Amino acid sequence: MIKVGIVGYGNLGRGVTLAVSKANDMECVGIFTRRSPSTVIPVVNYPVYAMDKLADFKGEIDVLLLCGGSATDLPNNTATLLKDFNTVDSFDTHAKIPEYYEKLEKVAKENGKLSAISIGWDPGVFSIARMLFGAVLPDGKDYTFWGKGVSQGHSDAIRRISGVKNAIQYTIPKEQALDSVRKGENPALTTREKHLRECFVAIENGADKDCIEKQIKEMPNYFADYDTIVNFVTEEEVRKMQKKLSHGGFVFRSGNTTSENAHLLELSLKLDSNPEFTGSVLVAYGRAVAKMAKEGKTGVVTVFDVPIKYLSPLGEDELRRTLL
Amino acid sequence: MIKVGIVGYGNLGRGVTLAVSKANDMECVGIFTRRSPSTVIPVVNYPVYAMDKLADFKGEIDVLLLCGGSATDLPNNTATLLKDFNTVDSFDTHAKIPEYYEKLEKVAKENGKLSAISIGWDPGVFSIARMLFGAVLPDGKDYTFWGKGVSQGHSDAIRRISGVKNAIQYTIPKEQALDSVRKGENPALTTREKHLRECFVAIENGADKDCIEKQIKEMPNYFADYDTIVNFVTEEEVRKMQKKLSHGGFVFRSGNTTSENAHLLELSLKLDSNPEFTGSVLVAYGRAVAKMAKEGKTGVVTVFDVPIKYLSPLGEDELRRTLL
Repeated sequence: MIKVGIVGYGNLGRGVTLAVSKANDMECVGIFTRRSPSTVIPVVNYPVYAMDKLADFKGEIDVLLLCGGSATDLPNNTATLLKDFNTVDSFDTHAKIPEYYEKLEKVAKENGKLSAISIGWDPGVFSIARMLFGAVLPDGKDYTFWGKGVSQGHSDAIRRISGVKNAIQYTIPKEQALDSVRKGENPALTTREKHLRECFVAIENGADKDCIEKQIKEMPNYFADYDTIVNFVTEEEVRKMQKKLSHGGFVFRSGNTTSENAHLLELSLKLDSNPEFTGSVLVAYGRAVAKMAKEGKTGVVTVFDVPIKYLSPLGEDELRRTLL
Repeated sequence: MIKVGIVGYGNLGRGVTLAVSKANDMECVGIFTRRSPSTVIPVVNYPVYAMDKLADFKGEIDVLLLCGGSATDLPNNTATLLKDFNTVDSFDTHAKIPEYYEKLEKVAKENGKLSAISIGWDPGVFSIARMLFGAVLPDGKDYTFWGKGVSQGHSDAIRRISGVKNAIQYTIPKEQALDSVRKGENPALTTREKHLRECFVAIENGADKDCIEKQIKEMPNYFADYDTIVNFVTEEEVRKMQKKLSHGGFVFRSGNTTSENAHLLELSLKLDSNPEFTGSVLVAYGRAVAKMAKEGKTGVVTVFDVPIKYLSPLGEDELRRTLL
């Protein structure tokens, strides 16, 4: 049995907990939280401990599944945890991955530990598709589309506007762009042509709708480069939408082997629950980390480095016989 | 530079040759053929040698790209070639993969060589999807559909019927089945419900059409379990269709993380040229074999064992920075 610890119990921690409970080759040593443990009632009946109890479990956990966020939790905590434990995380700030990798690689090597970073669906499953597709069809073009799904960052940005009580933002791929890529037209697509942003905003009594809509639509980096739809709704409606964390997207590679022969490779994910699916991916890579660490592997790995056989509870013979 | 040899120059050999010519990190030492070398005019101007000259190149080729068929070429030849060279092949007789693996594993280990087997799109890219999807969504169902594309085996079977001059058979996935899977209905599909078989048959003057059509439709293993459409056409029409070797297909995983949250993962390939795309995959895995062999790896590997970073000519830092 692979012994895992779950660090953090937000949406992702809950998804990871569910996924661990479905893995017959894993047992959960505990969920570790910064909150008061008695206030955390996990979806599966695993023991809950305060974070500072984690040190007591050194040597008793094969891999820690880190369920913190990429903004502050992971950059601040992973390196420290990696001194005593193998880890898996879902660090997804693409621009900061090289820096994060370097920092952890040093700690992992110094302490003989193994860490899988940037695991989930993007980065993660989508990265596998981008890399694999590009390698097997070198003369071609990549396209990644996200959605329909909630962007937490864009929702937060709207909530920071004065007069806004709550808000949710959906990223939606444009059908016309998808169709053009699927037809093999290899279009050059602007940011605006790829995705639409739809916002549902609850405002305070008497707040200026026109002014808020303008502030959203003109917000640099977040909305200015997109076609944005703003809908004003009640707080209750926003809260209802916030309960359904569906997401998904598409990775395409469109290219040629000769001028007359074109090929289209497409991966698509339609996910009812972003945190539950991300958690499920994290657990599969947790299995891989535990196995590879047992074989003596140390350092930092990403989806590019992990042979996929390690993700499965099945043996190598069975994989070749049934899935090859 | 990775030095490759190409063994066999049929449709796949031609596809591999084109793919090698696009790889900036590879040079082709030669194409090796059982035909008289002077009769082979390759699509790229690489030297052509008789097969028995291959022994002279021992130590000068990093990896042999084997372009023979799975029925007789690969089972008879790979083990012998593996004594002196690292190899990649597209062995695709699913039921015989375990036996093929065992035989080659012994030779590879004894001779310190590395062999990647069953490389292409199925087995190959599709196998990656099946395995990865199953590992990240364990509570679910798999579906693989093939086509629209030519089945060489089924075309051959028709050609063996008395009175048939030439024939081509297309495997076509049924839209209704695809739709049901895409809707997340998790249908239990019979063989007949998944694929349609459409045949284009040229017959000899005076041959009995009704009798031939009946023989095709009732042929056990090949057609009896399918809805089969038989079209009688001229030999010229069959020959024209035989020039376009398009193919493709779909791998789905449909499942749940909780009873209320379902997920659908889909990989689809639309290939204008089956042998050119297969050749392109073979070349990417040739790169991986050359690199892994250089690191000291020996034995037999499949797509389940090869970290995908090895498929790319890009360095690990660049992969993390640009594709993760």
